[in-house]
Amino acid sequence: MLERFGHGGDLLTAQELFGHGADHFIDFSANMNPFGPPTCVADLLGRYMDVIRHYPDPAVRALRSKLALHHGVSDSSILVGNGAAELIDLVFRLLHPTHTVLAQPCFVEYGDAAVKSGSSIRAIELQAEQEFRLTKQLVRDKLALLREEGVESGEAIWFFGSPNNPTGKLIDPSLVHDLLLEGERVVVDEAFMDFVPEEHTYSLAKAAADHERLLVIRSMTKFYAIPGIRLGYVIGSPEMIARLQYFQIPWSVNSLAQGIGEAVLEDQEYAASTLRFVAEERCWLSGQLLAIGLTVHESAANYLLVSIPPGRGWTAGLLQRALGSRGILIRDASRFEGLDNCYCRIAVRLREDNAALLQALTSLLGSDCAAEGKA
Amino acid sequence: MLERFGHGGDLLTAQELFGHGADHFIDFSANMNPFGPPTCVADLLGRYMDVIRHYPDPAVRALRSKLALHHGVSDSSILVGNGAAELIDLVFRLLHPTHTVLAQPCFVEYGDAAVKSGSSIRAIELQAEQEFRLTKQLVRDKLALLREEGVESGEAIWFFGSPNNPTGKLIDPSLVHDLLLEGERVVVDEAFMDFVPEEHTYSLAKAAADHERLLVIRSMTKFYAIPGIRLGYVIGSPEMIARLQYFQIPWSVNSLAQGIGEAVLEDQEYAASTLRFVAEERCWLSGQLLAIGLTVHESAANYLLVSIPPGRGWTAGLLQRALGSRGILIRDASRFEGLDNCYCRIAVRLREDNAALLQALTSLLGSDCAAEGKA
Repeated sequence: MLERFGHGGDLLTAQELFGHGADHFIDFSANMNPFGPPTCVADLLGRYMDVIRHYPDPAVRALRSKLALHHGVSDSSILVGNGAAELIDLVFRLLHPTHTVLAQPCFVEYGDAAVKSGSSIRAIELQAEQEFRLTKQLVRDKLALLREEGVESGEAIWFFGSPNNPTGKLIDPSLVHDLLLEGERVVVDEAFMDFVPEEHTYSLAKAAADHERLLVIRSMTKFYAIPGIRLGYVIGSPEMIARLQYFQIPWSVNSLAQGIGEAVLEDQEYAASTLRFVAEERCWLSGQLLAIGLTVHESAANYLLVSIPPGRGWTAGLLQRALGSRGILIRDASRFEGLDNCYCRIAVRLREDNAALLQALTSLLGSDCAAEGKA
Repeated sequence: MLERFGHGGDLLTAQELFGHGADHFIDFSANMNPFGPPTCVADLLGRYMDVIRHYPDPAVRALRSKLALHHGVSDSSILVGNGAAELIDLVFRLLHPTHTVLAQPCFVEYGDAAVKSGSSIRAIELQAEQEFRLTKQLVRDKLALLREEGVESGEAIWFFGSPNNPTGKLIDPSLVHDLLLEGERVVVDEAFMDFVPEEHTYSLAKAAADHERLLVIRSMTKFYAIPGIRLGYVIGSPEMIARLQYFQIPWSVNSLAQGIGEAVLEDQEYAASTLRFVAEERCWLSGQLLAIGLTVHESAANYLLVSIPPGRGWTAGLLQRALGSRGILIRDASRFEGLDNCYCRIAVRLREDNAALLQALTSLLGSDCAAEGKA
């Protein structure tokens, strides 16, 4: 399967599986900005031969300052990392929780990092019938259960994605504030928050700088389409950030990533066009997928969770293979805890690519599927 | 001080301290290949705009194969990391030793990573009178002491640099084999081994692939002058490598580093010229430093440990500041455990740079220092 190493976007495995060159694939399995990287990245690459010969700034001073300005927090509230993945790992090393509450399905790294740190997983099972929304009731029930079992406040951590991957659902910030009032520790992964036009309503980034039991993790690789170079950061109280930094390896963030991070934050037009385009194109793609008979879950991010109605003889794995051999990669989402083998995750790409996907899906899923979907 | 974040090569701190632009400095404080990166790096940067938009290969397959061929070991004996620093950290997370034996002075990260993992430091104090050599007697004495204290075989790890930083001394491989025969666990950091013409006599890389209690860490950033992008690897038995990999974060090695690693291994002429040049230039620079009255320790690597004879009114810190204001950076080595404030570490650079350093040193240290040195 394409997710041999647990994730989408693995073009080398795609080559091995489907026998095409890496250039051949239209990749819907990784959730990147369809515009590709901003042009300032090319300028930086042109100058990098003079930069690579020196160590990166060990304290990531320039980028940290720009990010602090961007979020309206102090420099000491930010730690930059080798992708969000490093920060997830650091958070678990520092907090070392006995229990980790996850709202599943969610990004598999939360659970993997929790288990590596010796934590047990306490799952909230999100329901398809509730559109995979994390409700206050679900949170209250889980908290009551933990208390019944003698788990004291602050002993567990609650680790959520907002927008959640793969469901695309935002988390109500007041739900997180309620947990904080109960004395709980909360980590929110906002890797896809830059794609949300209503970011100021939903993001907890600024709140994290002022609260010692709240951390917010952000990624720059998705919105700026630079997953190859790895760049993420975490926002928290200065004291928490200093404690996280203690566990970070020296020069964890390479100098190209630092330079790109600084440059892309200046490109406000790229950011504005992306926000506009993704919202519109997601709406169009969602409608088209519905029209060919698939179940599409509403999403605030640049990807869609889709399920194949039962009884068609198709699973996500079969569909992935069939599309892969046509040079189109989608994410088989059945590896996410809480989803069965009907679920796929599809990134929103440019119109031409999306049209190619729709054409391939129509031809594979057949006319009766389409007919029923339109009915 | 320049080593504000614990290391040399920090040009941003140099700018803050000495008020010049980063381009202004001749940097002897970081131990890089003076040739700068191979030209293939520029070719890769030119093509990277198409690569950065995809995730790195999570399993680093192509580079791992090339490194395996290079060392004559199997692919499964190699784990690539985000610089050697990540691998030092992973080794401590996995082995979790009660005690860590270090031969000091040595690279500060060994001790820092040990302490973070909860290990105590058991130092072997290398002696200036013995040219900072790690002798079998020193090792036997320490082992006897540990046994007296009830530390059983395999409970501690022995972590050595070869060539050692900052002393430049190689470790006798039979000393390591003796420790393995005693049931001990040994890690050898060979970050600078590529600079050693007699690598095949001294490197334990191949031995590590066949021994479950031996690990060898290598760096590609020094020899190929690419510290900005971070690239290192560890060699061990397939079982140990799999256990280390379990703790590694996903996509830890960015795709530019992977691509550069693959490309530079092909440039055998660059490697051969570097070996020739560094050996000759180190010899010349060493003679010149002696001639101006400094004590120079013999080194197998691309840097020299130098001490200022007492009674001249100069400390390493004073000399660093005086040179820094002239645009020349050296490493104040007094922060290395076991060295006092007379010690500096100086990288071997190209002749023009080395000549500029010598001229500045002569003018600063004065004529009586030079006269006594020549006597």
